[in-house]
Amino acid sequence: MPGEFELIRRHFSRGVQHTDLGVGDDGALLRTRPGMQLVVSSDMLVAGTHFFPDAEPEALGWKTAAVNISDMAAMAAEPRWITLALALPASDDKWVGAFADGFAECCAAFGVDWIGGDTTRGPLNLCATVFGEVPHGQAVLRNGARLGDDLWISGTPGFAALGLQHLLGNIVLAEEARAVCLSALHRPQPRVALGLALCGVATAMLDVSDGLLGDLAHILEQSDCGASIEDVLLPLAPVTSASGDEGLARRALLGGGDDYELLFAAPLAQRQVVLDISQQLGLPLTRIGVMTEKSNVIATKKRDGSIETVSAQGYDHFESDS
Amino acid sequence: MPGEFELIRRHFSRGVQHTDLGVGDDGALLRTRPGMQLVVSSDMLVAGTHFFPDAEPEALGWKTAAVNISDMAAMAAEPRWITLALALPASDDKWVGAFADGFAECCAAFGVDWIGGDTTRGPLNLCATVFGEVPHGQAVLRNGARLGDDLWISGTPGFAALGLQHLLGNIVLAEEARAVCLSALHRPQPRVALGLALCGVATAMLDVSDGLLGDLAHILEQSDCGASIEDVLLPLAPVTSASGDEGLARRALLGGGDDYELLFAAPLAQRQVVLDISQQLGLPLTRIGVMTEKSNVIATKKRDGSIETVSAQGYDHFESDS
Repeated sequence: MPGEFELIRRHFSRGVQHTDLGVGDDGALLRTRPGMQLVVSSDMLVAGTHFFPDAEPEALGWKTAAVNISDMAAMAAEPRWITLALALPASDDKWVGAFADGFAECCAAFGVDWIGGDTTRGPLNLCATVFGEVPHGQAVLRNGARLGDDLWISGTPGFAALGLQHLLGNIVLAEEARAVCLSALHRPQPRVALGLALCGVATAMLDVSDGLLGDLAHILEQSDCGASIEDVLLPLAPVTSASGDEGLARRALLGGGDDYELLFAAPLAQRQVVLDISQQLGLPLTRIGVMTEKSNVIATKKRDGSIETVSAQGYDHFESDS
Repeated sequence: MPGEFELIRRHFSRGVQHTDLGVGDDGALLRTRPGMQLVVSSDMLVAGTHFFPDAEPEALGWKTAAVNISDMAAMAAEPRWITLALALPASDDKWVGAFADGFAECCAAFGVDWIGGDTTRGPLNLCATVFGEVPHGQAVLRNGARLGDDLWISGTPGFAALGLQHLLGNIVLAEEARAVCLSALHRPQPRVALGLALCGVATAMLDVSDGLLGDLAHILEQSDCGASIEDVLLPLAPVTSASGDEGLARRALLGGGDDYELLFAAPLAQRQVVLDISQQLGLPLTRIGVMTEKSNVIATKKRDGSIETVSAQGYDHFESDS
């Protein structure tokens, strides 16, 4: 059985493009470019909580990198470097190799240098810390949304939640929909190009990891706003088509997480700019509502014109199963 | 039971001193000073592998920060920022509060801003990533030791290993020795001031986490050197006094880890400079041997003049218990 140092040598020492010193010493060495702020974020994925213990390792490697890189997109930052610490129940060379391949593939796809980390024995746990750069003062935070701003969502959120429900045996997806939904769940695409394009356009932004409404609550809290969403505006058609049930599609779109789409506010005056970005990137950007006066509830206007309010309560890893 | 966001709000949002944006958004924002390189290191601590599952949380918080900060010392860098991701089997407010207090106390003691992280449910796992600054090109790596350099160790390594053996029931320490050894094990002191003082003096350096000989092997490998150590030079007296057994003390000093002392090489011409640093810091620095021609073994000269060679084989988390 290969040991820790051998595993690191064999799988974790990939080339670096813009790093002074990568894997192999007490620390890595890097430099930010002049005028840039460093953006730092850390995400931990745990077997049984964030993924099935028998998850396919290459996809899991991709996802571990992707969910971290997505945090850079959400700040309008350019992802540049990443570290990976992982605990493994056993030293399985084949598993580690496939996992490292998926992790490295995602890093390479987004220009991110994998600069170091740690390996140890323990229940399967994957902890990455990602570093990005943003011109000083240009990061898009969660606190800048203003009354009257449009509220936008990228892509077609809901597929990942459907994929998860399928794997849990709660629904059965047809073959084509299954492929789309499992791909959304297992190989999310961080919206890096979109995040960068929205610098100076969006007033508040985050990536949806825990569910659209739950994550929207963070923008409301930090921007001191409320929000109103209209069912008729939601990009429901593709999710309904995949699930065959509009009610289920709506729950997946508004409540499901794990799609890593960007949710952002932008002034009315930027509406055409946002639509132009959508066209340039070939990525649907959908205006789903508007920022309102401060409120603890999110108003959703249903198709029949009635207003439903939902508590601005985030999904919570600890409370969700208690 | 408090949820994830409530736990973060309550315990993890401490003040920051030199950070543009701390906990609460998709990422933290910071800037390195002009002319500085950023040094990055990540360490993961797992219950059952690195600490007892019933470890006292405040000391565990201290140690989680300390072992990471120690990596900055080992690079001759000034520690500046840290993130913490942790998985918890249950949301225990009292435990998390004590852990966060210990973690924050160590950060404050070394001028480190705690800028973010992640909490999730899972088997107890603590993953910190630390960032330091070092003037460009001045980091002390593992690859600069040269034939004839003195080999030095800080402090009195071996106490932590004795403390661990006591807790495992393999030895019984007297009351006074027990306090010293358990303190070394539970509240290691990263040698930050020493690391900074050795910038421009040491040719190679690392912190001893896995055992003096095992970690020395990394310097030999990267510096293309061998090393010879003399028993008569080793700072054995305090460890022998604590354990009451010179053989045990020697094994603890050379093979035990977890003291986080700095092991470094420095040219003969710097010998007085090193001794002056020792006096200024009030910290024993002991010359234990010399760097030799490239070799896969470390020669240790025993008191009777005989030479013993030991394989330059690092302690390995995966192989140690297989």
